[in-house]
Amino acid sequence: VTVSDFTERDLIARIADRLPAAPDWLLVGVGDDAAVVEPERNRVEVLTVDALVEGVHFDRTFVPPDAIGHRALAVNLSDIAAMGAAPRLALLSMALPAALPLDDFDRIVAGFLALASQHRVHVAGGNLTRSPGPLMLDVTVTGTVKRRQALTRRGARPGDEIYVSGAMGAAAAGLQMLRDGTSEDLPYNRDAAGVAHDLSPACTERYLCPEPRVRLGMLIGRNRAATACMDLSDGLADAVSQVACASGVGAVIDAGALPIGNAARRWFEAHGLDAVAEAATGGDDYELLAAVPPKRRRRFEQSARAAGTPVTRIGVWTADTAVLLRRSHEGSIVDMPLSSAGGRTFRHFQ
Amino acid sequence: VTVSDFTERDLIARIADRLPAAPDWLLVGVGDDAAVVEPERNRVEVLTVDALVEGVHFDRTFVPPDAIGHRALAVNLSDIAAMGAAPRLALLSMALPAALPLDDFDRIVAGFLALASQHRVHVAGGNLTRSPGPLMLDVTVTGTVKRRQALTRRGARPGDEIYVSGAMGAAAAGLQMLRDGTSEDLPYNRDAAGVAHDLSPACTERYLCPEPRVRLGMLIGRNRAATACMDLSDGLADAVSQVACASGVGAVIDAGALPIGNAARRWFEAHGLDAVAEAATGGDDYELLAAVPPKRRRRFEQSARAAGTPVTRIGVWTADTAVLLRRSHEGSIVDMPLSSAGGRTFRHFQ
Repeated sequence: VTVSDFTERDLIARIADRLPAAPDWLLVGVGDDAAVVEPERNRVEVLTVDALVEGVHFDRTFVPPDAIGHRALAVNLSDIAAMGAAPRLALLSMALPAALPLDDFDRIVAGFLALASQHRVHVAGGNLTRSPGPLMLDVTVTGTVKRRQALTRRGARPGDEIYVSGAMGAAAAGLQMLRDGTSEDLPYNRDAAGVAHDLSPACTERYLCPEPRVRLGMLIGRNRAATACMDLSDGLADAVSQVACASGVGAVIDAGALPIGNAARRWFEAHGLDAVAEAATGGDDYELLAAVPPKRRRRFEQSARAAGTPVTRIGVWTADTAVLLRRSHEGSIVDMPLSSAGGRTFRHFQ
Repeated sequence: VTVSDFTERDLIARIADRLPAAPDWLLVGVGDDAAVVEPERNRVEVLTVDALVEGVHFDRTFVPPDAIGHRALAVNLSDIAAMGAAPRLALLSMALPAALPLDDFDRIVAGFLALASQHRVHVAGGNLTRSPGPLMLDVTVTGTVKRRQALTRRGARPGDEIYVSGAMGAAAAGLQMLRDGTSEDLPYNRDAAGVAHDLSPACTERYLCPEPRVRLGMLIGRNRAATACMDLSDGLADAVSQVACASGVGAVIDAGALPIGNAARRWFEAHGLDAVAEAATGGDDYELLAAVPPKRRRRFEQSARAAGTPVTRIGVWTADTAVLLRRSHEGSIVDMPLSSAGGRTFRHFQ
């Protein structure tokens, strides 16, 4: 049974039937030309959209359907978190290959709705169409924040410290582990996988089901604990350079301080890879990067404790606009452009 | 030169460079993790998302890039109009094949922004990714409306009259004309096309560059001139049945009253097709369908005159929940299910 056995209306009904009761502020939800929403008083609105495309952002041979749904929402929640906002609603737009099994469709929706429920995000609408090519999920999420508590990429100042949440590199290692696995053993069998294939759930789970740092972002915003914030969706090197560019500053990242998880580090080293370079340039870590003035350091660390999220100081924003990675090499200190840490200077659109 | 010669950042900059100055209410626009927007006082918010997928919703061999951009926004503005709302901002998410010429990318954006400018809709953000398959545009549009002026599909009551704006069938005829054209003569050459290939610009333009009925929708809402409203994106038969279902009513449509344009009618008849059936089931007419109580008929028609949009009474909503097309056949009156008017009962998701 595939989605092509159903009408668009049938499939929309399958989603609508699983939605929890609509909150008071959702005046018109799924099933009309558009959703109608009561704005939240005294707050501004935050909107983001992000797409997951099969063959670009995920591979269906080793990413189970529920993880596809989870990730499609998680990447957007991560953007909302990076603005210091509280997420509120999602619009789910999907382009479905005709051969997509109905069960996969249901599991994608289930993965999406499970994460939505966890963050009290309501699905207010969306769109379904068929795709003659890859499966695509395009998700819009809106949230709200008090105007003066919104975090942008623009406010970092020289002397502010660079903090990152959680650990880095695990998702990139997890993706490689999943790619290296054999298809007969891997898919949908995350429990047993760690033993037979050097799979570390600590890494594969981080790739498959990233936890957006929603609470941390909200607390950083509420406590005004940072001057700039961004998420690491395209990797640390990209995020540091984007914040530096938007804020008109540079950065020096201390390679030795990068919080690289043990499992990821072991896997990189076992495969002859430079763990620092991999962690600095690898994507899919939905962690937050923040600029924290020294005077607000305590406030920032208290916010992180309240959110239950570890944070690590990894460097400093500088007046010089170069974005550098500082490493010790044979007893001396070497600064190199962060963007070339992985031997990849920048990625073309292909 | 294709989009694959550029980074995502380059392409975003090409869009950002063409945006007009940000309005006051757009606190953070393109270039951060998310957009930040000041809500409009005393109004509720309307949100919609709609995707255009190459090979499903358009064919690049005969739909020029600027028309692709135009249509991607138009279909969403039509949804906003159907809610009685004023559009405000758009998020533009695109999945681009690596081989897409840069010039096509620029023209897609230009077509999108030209329509946006016409309706004072500001692009507040979006997403760019590559596609290993078709070109896809996924557009989110938000608007605002006074709470009591929002139009839904739910309010039609038995005895309310059924109105439709503009003319029907032209887009469906235009699509067929474009499909029948030879590829060497057709693409991007709309001026000369009418002569050589039986192309009627009145039809092809309606398919390529539909004009969403934004002003009409706003005035119907503001004047509370209708009890229900929906746009005809998937055709009249679909829209009537959706409003009937949402409102718990039925409908009788008078086939003789359908406003089928002359060029479309001639083309259908010249090709041995039943013009009524084609117009009733053909899609891509971004007209509005409304339920108008007899007492508000004058108010509705005044709203239409003020919007400069012709409207036609085509039937009546009924207590019986059947949705019927009434035709005269060899001197007698025949009612048939509207959904089977074109010999197509309903469309599976394929």
